[in-house]
Amino acid sequence: MHLRLKSGDDDMEMKFWNAATKAISPYVAGEQPKTRCIKLNTNENPYPPSSACEDVLRSVDVESLRKYPDPTSAKLREAVAGVCGVETEMVFTGNGSDEVLAFAFRAFFDEQTMIAFADITYSFYPVYAKSLGIPYSLIAVRDDLSIDVERYIAFKGGVIIANPNAPTGILTDTTDIRRIVEADPDRLVIVDEAYIDFGGESAAFMTKEYDNLLVVQTVSKSRALAGIRVGYAIGNSALIKALERVRDTINSYTVDSVAQAVAAAALKDDEWFEVNRGKIIASRKSLTEKLAEMGFETLPSAANFVFTTKRDVDARMLYEELKKKGILIRYFDLPRIDGYLRITVGTPEENEALCDALSVLVPASRKA
Amino acid sequence: MHLRLKSGDDDMEMKFWNAATKAISPYVAGEQPKTRCIKLNTNENPYPPSSACEDVLRSVDVESLRKYPDPTSAKLREAVAGVCGVETEMVFTGNGSDEVLAFAFRAFFDEQTMIAFADITYSFYPVYAKSLGIPYSLIAVRDDLSIDVERYIAFKGGVIIANPNAPTGILTDTTDIRRIVEADPDRLVIVDEAYIDFGGESAAFMTKEYDNLLVVQTVSKSRALAGIRVGYAIGNSALIKALERVRDTINSYTVDSVAQAVAAAALKDDEWFEVNRGKIIASRKSLTEKLAEMGFETLPSAANFVFTTKRDVDARMLYEELKKKGILIRYFDLPRIDGYLRITVGTPEENEALCDALSVLVPASRKA
Repeated sequence: MHLRLKSGDDDMEMKFWNAATKAISPYVAGEQPKTRCIKLNTNENPYPPSSACEDVLRSVDVESLRKYPDPTSAKLREAVAGVCGVETEMVFTGNGSDEVLAFAFRAFFDEQTMIAFADITYSFYPVYAKSLGIPYSLIAVRDDLSIDVERYIAFKGGVIIANPNAPTGILTDTTDIRRIVEADPDRLVIVDEAYIDFGGESAAFMTKEYDNLLVVQTVSKSRALAGIRVGYAIGNSALIKALERVRDTINSYTVDSVAQAVAAAALKDDEWFEVNRGKIIASRKSLTEKLAEMGFETLPSAANFVFTTKRDVDARMLYEELKKKGILIRYFDLPRIDGYLRITVGTPEENEALCDALSVLVPASRKA
Repeated sequence: MHLRLKSGDDDMEMKFWNAATKAISPYVAGEQPKTRCIKLNTNENPYPPSSACEDVLRSVDVESLRKYPDPTSAKLREAVAGVCGVETEMVFTGNGSDEVLAFAFRAFFDEQTMIAFADITYSFYPVYAKSLGIPYSLIAVRDDLSIDVERYIAFKGGVIIANPNAPTGILTDTTDIRRIVEADPDRLVIVDEAYIDFGGESAAFMTKEYDNLLVVQTVSKSRALAGIRVGYAIGNSALIKALERVRDTINSYTVDSVAQAVAAAALKDDEWFEVNRGKIIASRKSLTEKLAEMGFETLPSAANFVFTTKRDVDARMLYEELKKKGILIRYFDLPRIDGYLRITVGTPEENEALCDALSVLVPASRKA
């Protein structure tokens, strides 16, 4: 007689789960719908990647896939090093920047080594910290939802800053990042630059100057390659070695051969990159203007999304009504930001469809 | 003034590493050389993958790569479910079976929940356990290096068995796996079947009967796709949910879009699969015979590698001499197996080149 799982029987379901697995609060990503819709909810690039990616996929040596990938991702790391102006040994690559960040939390922080991050920021940070038993401190963003730089300078312990921040889109200047890094050379500063290419200056160049700075980027957003899962960290080679050690307790080969080649090709296509981000920055501006015409206040965004609010309108209702019309955006039911909508900058056509739908909803949606 | 890393200054190098990172003993994979050689060291399939993989790569919708992959890997999981004869919700997919195993260690074991495995087995298991602080017990293999089934039956706690075992290649019969699973329905049994398709019966079908059995497989070996990094676990949906929870504390999307499509296509190509494994099983037989003619004793292998020894010859010397000739095999400097060589079954031509090289080395290499 063997114990069988009864549906709805939670105790049985968790029979083999350890205490940590039971306690997990997993990160919840934006929806990935299988039906056709206007998808402005997970900050994907609205345009196809560089044609160099297609060339790679059409010409990849399929026979070589029988072999393991290059575990050092040498060509990909060279491409990253070229873009960021650092040496190859200052680059670590992983299966998306989320994995790279998870490895960094695991490599550098623990019960004894606290980390601080903003109360309003990428919601994966508390998930990493909790799942690894790392004590963390929340530093409140200012009233205008910007990063409170002075409090990071004063904080004793490691810090992670999303720059530009998510979901606000607000940029912290590299001058301020430098002040935070310099304030205490004995604590590690991680700057998560997933969205930096849409309007900010990267701190990557400073990793040559400071051994306590780790910069994390991704090809998911500004290279239009969320589907191939490549992220990377730039930092002093001692930090990179620690990330390699953590990786090598989990999986020796985290970036597959095809992904290495496709990402490297994308990173080398400067022209595609400049044109693409130019289009998105222009669309962000015009989207922000159209939202303003409807009475929305939008935070200054350096990212490929906007964070916007309209005082007299219920944001959750707008999110839900747009979803019914096949337009997906993101709503966060969290203190301080539950009046906001996060909207990925789409193509001009997508942004127009969004604004058309909003203009119908807004006049009829005043709160009682 | 900022602290700069001095080369060779270990304390400085480890400045930001936490205690666990300092203590890590990383897994060391077989060498991935960049020069041309006869590569019989990491158990890759010697033949190209199914032509269906090429079709996928040549026709993949490159524009779709701007979007995140399907986080549920639905089509890939359906393909696995089809091969293994289980429901889709009994399948978890990951970035290679190493990642899947790492997640399983993290989901089901901890300081309070011990795990046992063989003293001679896949050397990633102690790495997982140590890095997660999981106490583990080593169960010695028998004198003939086979798994000592009765000791697993008697053990109180979770177990993991590589079947066939690495690096011995020896198979444990599913009848014995069943006895281990049935011996204690309150402990989890993980069967790592990376090499099962080369000569064993999978225990996957038993996951429908037992909620304490998790079977892990990969497309790296018997589908000739080590380069695309796809592994999977088959088990009761409660076990699968736990793996998903662990994944979602690290990275919501571990299997990229291209890898999902390529692996699914490979898994569906039954004809390629049967022909390919037939060739490798035949080559293993003839390689074993040729080795026997030279006086090597080879353990009975159900994998795509052989584990072989010659009493009067220094195995390490053979490994090193073959390497000088551009033939890579694997040597483990570990108690009980330091007289053995692990040789991946290559093409008939590769196997012949190996045997030719060995036949030159063996007569001249008797120990003093």
